[in-house]
Amino acid sequence: MIEPEVATHVTMDEITALAKRRGFIFPSSEIYGGINGFWDYGPLGALLKRNVKDAWWRQVVDLRDDVVAFDSSIIMHPETWVASGHVAAFHDKLIDCRNCKHRFRADHLASLEQCPDCGMRGTFTEPRDFNLMMKTNVGPMEDSAALAYLRPETAQGIFVNFKNIYQTARKKPPFGIAQIGKSFRNEITPGNFIFRIREFEQAELEYFVPDDGNDLTCYDEWVIARRQWYADYGIKPERLRFYELKPEERPHYAKAGTDVEYLFPWGWGELESIAHRGTYDLDAHMKLSGKDLTYYDEATKTKYTPILIESSAGMDRTTLTMLIDAYEKEKGVDPNGKETERVVLRLHPRIAPIKVAIFSLARNKPELVERAHIIEHALRPFFRSQYDEGNIGQLYRRQDEIGTPYCVTVDYDTLQDGAVTVRERDSMRQDRVSADQLAGYLADRL
Amino acid sequence: MIEPEVATHVTMDEITALAKRRGFIFPSSEIYGGINGFWDYGPLGALLKRNVKDAWWRQVVDLRDDVVAFDSSIIMHPETWVASGHVAAFHDKLIDCRNCKHRFRADHLASLEQCPDCGMRGTFTEPRDFNLMMKTNVGPMEDSAALAYLRPETAQGIFVNFKNIYQTARKKPPFGIAQIGKSFRNEITPGNFIFRIREFEQAELEYFVPDDGNDLTCYDEWVIARRQWYADYGIKPERLRFYELKPEERPHYAKAGTDVEYLFPWGWGELESIAHRGTYDLDAHMKLSGKDLTYYDEATKTKYTPILIESSAGMDRTTLTMLIDAYEKEKGVDPNGKETERVVLRLHPRIAPIKVAIFSLARNKPELVERAHIIEHALRPFFRSQYDEGNIGQLYRRQDEIGTPYCVTVDYDTLQDGAVTVRERDSMRQDRVSADQLAGYLADRL
Repeated sequence: MIEPEVATHVTMDEITALAKRRGFIFPSSEIYGGINGFWDYGPLGALLKRNVKDAWWRQVVDLRDDVVAFDSSIIMHPETWVASGHVAAFHDKLIDCRNCKHRFRADHLASLEQCPDCGMRGTFTEPRDFNLMMKTNVGPMEDSAALAYLRPETAQGIFVNFKNIYQTARKKPPFGIAQIGKSFRNEITPGNFIFRIREFEQAELEYFVPDDGNDLTCYDEWVIARRQWYADYGIKPERLRFYELKPEERPHYAKAGTDVEYLFPWGWGELESIAHRGTYDLDAHMKLSGKDLTYYDEATKTKYTPILIESSAGMDRTTLTMLIDAYEKEKGVDPNGKETERVVLRLHPRIAPIKVAIFSLARNKPELVERAHIIEHALRPFFRSQYDEGNIGQLYRRQDEIGTPYCVTVDYDTLQDGAVTVRERDSMRQDRVSADQLAGYLADRL
Repeated sequence: MIEPEVATHVTMDEITALAKRRGFIFPSSEIYGGINGFWDYGPLGALLKRNVKDAWWRQVVDLRDDVVAFDSSIIMHPETWVASGHVAAFHDKLIDCRNCKHRFRADHLASLEQCPDCGMRGTFTEPRDFNLMMKTNVGPMEDSAALAYLRPETAQGIFVNFKNIYQTARKKPPFGIAQIGKSFRNEITPGNFIFRIREFEQAELEYFVPDDGNDLTCYDEWVIARRQWYADYGIKPERLRFYELKPEERPHYAKAGTDVEYLFPWGWGELESIAHRGTYDLDAHMKLSGKDLTYYDEATKTKYTPILIESSAGMDRTTLTMLIDAYEKEKGVDPNGKETERVVLRLHPRIAPIKVAIFSLARNKPELVERAHIIEHALRPFFRSQYDEGNIGQLYRRQDEIGTPYCVTVDYDTLQDGAVTVRERDSMRQDRVSADQLAGYLADRL
């Protein structure tokens, strides 16, 4: 048996314990026993995920003049999902055990002979299709006419609006449309913490290009851009791979596709897919709706259906990746020669939930406490900051564990010289900085 | 009959036409005939709404050291909605006409005698309860055990996590928990554009205070803070009112409540509610779950259930308010003495979707086009910017209509003196500014 490739620098138990202990991520509705496949982001997790989404948005929208923003509704007209193929084909195969009544995903069963739960043989039903879209009813009638779906992906909201968008934004291919939003999939077997969940957030870019022979070049450019994004935010290259799909692994209409995968403690897992999708999506909506979604080029007086390059990334998975990839246990020696271990999240400063912590060296010295609060208050409009007080070693340990890049200590000398000690998370290097120049010092580094 | 109080500076037709024409807001899934009560935010609308949410977040989270962030799931354990009272009591009364089969909200009918649609008398059924929560099923079984609801408000996600949050964030009342997220209500009669919709976004602050006699002072402080927020972003005071609820209009457990209302073209409409909620919410979840959600004060070794002050604001309604409130038609006279009218959105610079537009005075002069692109590219990391070219009057008109605070024109003189013309939206004042100093000039003003 081949040893599976896994990340070994941290276990999922360590990550989930840290996430719970420090308030990154909690099971949803925990006081009622939780609900399988749903999670809540605590005070630090909500900031962390927000930063991950903002970092994506900055690369894909803010820094480009060829990508426009979009934000479509989670519940759309149900015909949308007929056109997209989700009603007919967004299925998992399920198998029931007639004896113990357990239900399994057929592709997760090692054998169709014997139930892994009750051990009986020959008790399985035939596999049957289970649609992964969550259904609801809209409007005051609870009949099939009012049936609607929670979107399983954000992309279709962009496709059905393609004409509205290019006309009002006056954009001409090549150009892109981006959105971030919640999607829902009724996963049979949610698992691996926030990796496979039923309610999740996607960041999708749909980039439309003319059929002029440059579509694969454009696809390559997006693969390079997205690779750069992960590098920019410090994801270790040895734990990231861009898996290029073989022709037989791609849909028939696609000329290329890449899965971006991260090496999690349980093995490789998909973070993002970058795909050439041909004209498949716009064609499908034109066919079912009877509406024109081609691009009309005023210059050449011709119309055509643009080719689509898509990047679809999971924001919860990327947030989990940031947590795992940043996690390090660092061995050291304390002043007494005793071996120590510190846990540090080496998060990129843009991703770190708290940018700077301000400490009062003593809890019971009003001058220090007041001075530290004044400094924290002055920094707050510019950097997400946090005041704390007490034992300095404990304070550093706590901030290291949540990835805060800088800690600032107000001590007795501060009252004399107006300077504070600034300690950097990764190098643990300490600088003495005038409190007046602190904002500038941090702005240069954050 | 008393004339209803309405805003008259703009009609809803003008707002919806502008929103569609410029790409702020489209009907969801329009190519399939739309879906009643759901809307999509186009390129400018997505940026506008994002700015509105960021402005709320900045006041309520970023600039405070006593409020932490949170982000809970839309689908929660169904018992949540039993405890909150939504399963039992989140109803509208519906009445059917037995003749024409139309269904009405009982409180919307002027009389119970005669159907307003078919005109028949005595055809109404008795009123019956219709729950406004949207239902779905979670997990591979479609039975009642797997029934779940789409949350009708974000607040409950905070209440059930109260203990997890205060323990991990090490917060002691008074402190608050804030989140922004989607909620769903199966409104019987969606209407007034994006005002009454079925999928909407809320920004909620839940502020927990000790029972030390200062709860009403704290409530007052939040009313003042929120009033300041609307003033900061330029909402006209004569179109905004803070309606203080009378004792008989409040729930029994509430000591105070204020509805924040805006004067829309159809009359006053609620944007936000600020409420003293006593210990009702935490009590209800403790009772049903059997779990302890009290605060344990280590200093005094006592535990108590904190009192809740809530601010709950609708982000779609606030976005609509920003659009309507900023809308002005301004009469003027052109150089030939002809009367003109310009439509201008006087959006606060933080709220405006585009901060600065850069124009090339001529389309067919490569030196100008290139120079304008270079300037736009240099500004882009700092301000949301947009390049455009063509007739300068048309370009100004377009940017005025979408609320862009500054327009920058590259003309023939620019090639000689390196300076550009900067035109301010509201005053229409023009400054000649060196291109090198443009970023600083804009940073001072935006």
